[in-house]
Amino acid sequence: MNASAERLPVRQTASQLLLRLIYDRGPISRADLVRAAGLTAPTVSDAAASLMAEGLVVEVGLGPSTGGKRPTLLQVAPDARQLIGIDLAHGNFRGALMNLRGEVICREEILLEGHRGVEALALVYRLVDALAARAQRPLLGIGIGAPGLTEAARGVVNAAVNLGWNDLPLAELLHEHSGLPVFLSNDCHLAALAEHLYGAGKDSPAMVVINTGYGIGSGIVLGGQLLAGVPFGGGEIGHLVVAAGGELCSCGHRGCLESVVGLRALARRAQELGLDVPAQLEGLPALLAERQQQGDPATQQLVNETGRALGTAAASLVAVLGGCRIFIAGSLMALGDPLLAALRAELALHAFTPVVEISEVGFVQAGEDIVLRGAAVLVLSRVMRLL
Amino acid sequence: MNASAERLPVRQTASQLLLRLIYDRGPISRADLVRAAGLTAPTVSDAAASLMAEGLVVEVGLGPSTGGKRPTLLQVAPDARQLIGIDLAHGNFRGALMNLRGEVICREEILLEGHRGVEALALVYRLVDALAARAQRPLLGIGIGAPGLTEAARGVVNAAVNLGWNDLPLAELLHEHSGLPVFLSNDCHLAALAEHLYGAGKDSPAMVVINTGYGIGSGIVLGGQLLAGVPFGGGEIGHLVVAAGGELCSCGHRGCLESVVGLRALARRAQELGLDVPAQLEGLPALLAERQQQGDPATQQLVNETGRALGTAAASLVAVLGGCRIFIAGSLMALGDPLLAALRAELALHAFTPVVEISEVGFVQAGEDIVLRGAAVLVLSRVMRLL
Repeated sequence: MNASAERLPVRQTASQLLLRLIYDRGPISRADLVRAAGLTAPTVSDAAASLMAEGLVVEVGLGPSTGGKRPTLLQVAPDARQLIGIDLAHGNFRGALMNLRGEVICREEILLEGHRGVEALALVYRLVDALAARAQRPLLGIGIGAPGLTEAARGVVNAAVNLGWNDLPLAELLHEHSGLPVFLSNDCHLAALAEHLYGAGKDSPAMVVINTGYGIGSGIVLGGQLLAGVPFGGGEIGHLVVAAGGELCSCGHRGCLESVVGLRALARRAQELGLDVPAQLEGLPALLAERQQQGDPATQQLVNETGRALGTAAASLVAVLGGCRIFIAGSLMALGDPLLAALRAELALHAFTPVVEISEVGFVQAGEDIVLRGAAVLVLSRVMRLL
Repeated sequence: MNASAERLPVRQTASQLLLRLIYDRGPISRADLVRAAGLTAPTVSDAAASLMAEGLVVEVGLGPSTGGKRPTLLQVAPDARQLIGIDLAHGNFRGALMNLRGEVICREEILLEGHRGVEALALVYRLVDALAARAQRPLLGIGIGAPGLTEAARGVVNAAVNLGWNDLPLAELLHEHSGLPVFLSNDCHLAALAEHLYGAGKDSPAMVVINTGYGIGSGIVLGGQLLAGVPFGGGEIGHLVVAAGGELCSCGHRGCLESVVGLRALARRAQELGLDVPAQLEGLPALLAERQQQGDPATQQLVNETGRALGTAAASLVAVLGGCRIFIAGSLMALGDPLLAALRAELALHAFTPVVEISEVGFVQAGEDIVLRGAAVLVLSRVMRLL
């Protein structure tokens, strides 16, 4: 009888479980791991030894005594492995080398300069190559936040209009190019995962991140699970009509949320008000915030209308999901509290008061690398089952 | 050592698992149950014997031979137990005695006649007493579909404006009155559960039932689980604004879905067109359908606007949930295909085309007892773990 073959799955599971416990609760003693995992002391000892042999776990000193001698504490070595996160939805292509905590070690950015289709794909390869070349540790894999409709399960970008990609099997192509495991999701879905794990969304039964920039979309986490849509489309509020009969959107409809509050729409509306618009539209919200603070009425109205359009979309989220926490991420965060005030006012007018009262609106706390950090969550959850 | 105490939970679990398998797949042989349950033949035999002793399962003849002698087939006895379903959201209070298949054995209806508060509660007691008196089998419990905001977990009606109920612990009160287990949920949530299990929604990863009548709301089932909202408010689209600046709604806002397509709003709009409105508003949609078929342009416009308002709300569902199947239930079903055509046209204009293309709109198949059948699902799932 082959006892080792019998025991192998149990050992693997024990290691995975312990690694996750140490990741979540470390520094932690072996005795506390025995209690938390419900495993025997020898199993915990063996698994801890093998995790230390792999360099994933290190001893980091002594904990307080609980009667006998002080226990040695274990912690995940955050820099034992590295991974690559990519954000393709940010205007230019941005990427970062990150550690096991989703902390950025170094960055690369490649200017898109209007490239589309195969040329845009070649830029993704260049970005990944540049980051892989800088890795000092074994790479776990690549996580990608892609714009537009994505089918995460198949690793396919269904439709990213600005990049001219249709049904592009990006995960498979990038795996062939790099030899690494590749995982892909919508950028807004990754932002929601990041905020759920690293930001203010932890323990919320229903949490939404509305990611703003050139495109607008949202990611929804219900009971700890991403509402990705089957096969796609969960949280795709960018093309929900919020101003019937409004401006024509790239999707072919009029008055979509994106056609009011996307960066291009914001620039158009600012120009109509006679404001100077910077070449890099990402800088526009900060300029608007400055003018708003200076008391310029036209800018105040622009910010107000932007918040109200978001509030109309937020009403849909609240009406469908019930009480939830809604966080704004991305470029429009620069508009600050006046944006939130307008959003809250319109939400209160457009959805059922008792449900609005148990809902909440704010900005994300996961920071401006939120999509990259979400890409890290994706890799860590799939490869290491850490999350 | 007390072996029977040790084995009791396993026996209970085996019985429950088998009862569910026989419910779902019966008539079924013991051999097929062994395969399906992954239990040993003696365990299956013992559990089947105890289910038969309880009268829950009966032998119903012989199956085809698979080599040896023909196997005896087992089936759940649908009339072994009875339960009470109550629909408080239908204008008057309706209830039914039902069997284990959610089939109606007999009905009772009590006219509400404007009663509210404690008086309305007394009518619920009377309805339950009348049904309980007619039961010929042991009663499993009572399932209630309540209007307005409900907290199913606590059995509380948070706010039912038309009944003047606020934070009413209806499940607890009715349990004290009847001595039976009582489970409560929003009527639209029950309609969604019924359609998911008995209607067209089976196996849909994302399914919505929009229940129409005096009030408007929806129930959403994602991956087989009801999106109830925490603590409430899932699918509460009746007070989503679909016509900004429209008529004043009972909720205090203007242009809510309910203020356009609820039965009272429909009656108001019909009167404005000079149509005769029946005293029982439930009959209005059928009258409108008749006039629409006769080619009356004003009625056609009324039906069209009703469908379009539903389509605007459906766009919110699609934008939040991604591709989904949306079924209309309740009074407005009488408006037929012209309603669906208008709904689909507006949905197509208000949500992202690729997501609309993977979505679907239709009428429920679970029939007009859909809330009562949902109440049966609630009781069967909680008491018997059958669903």
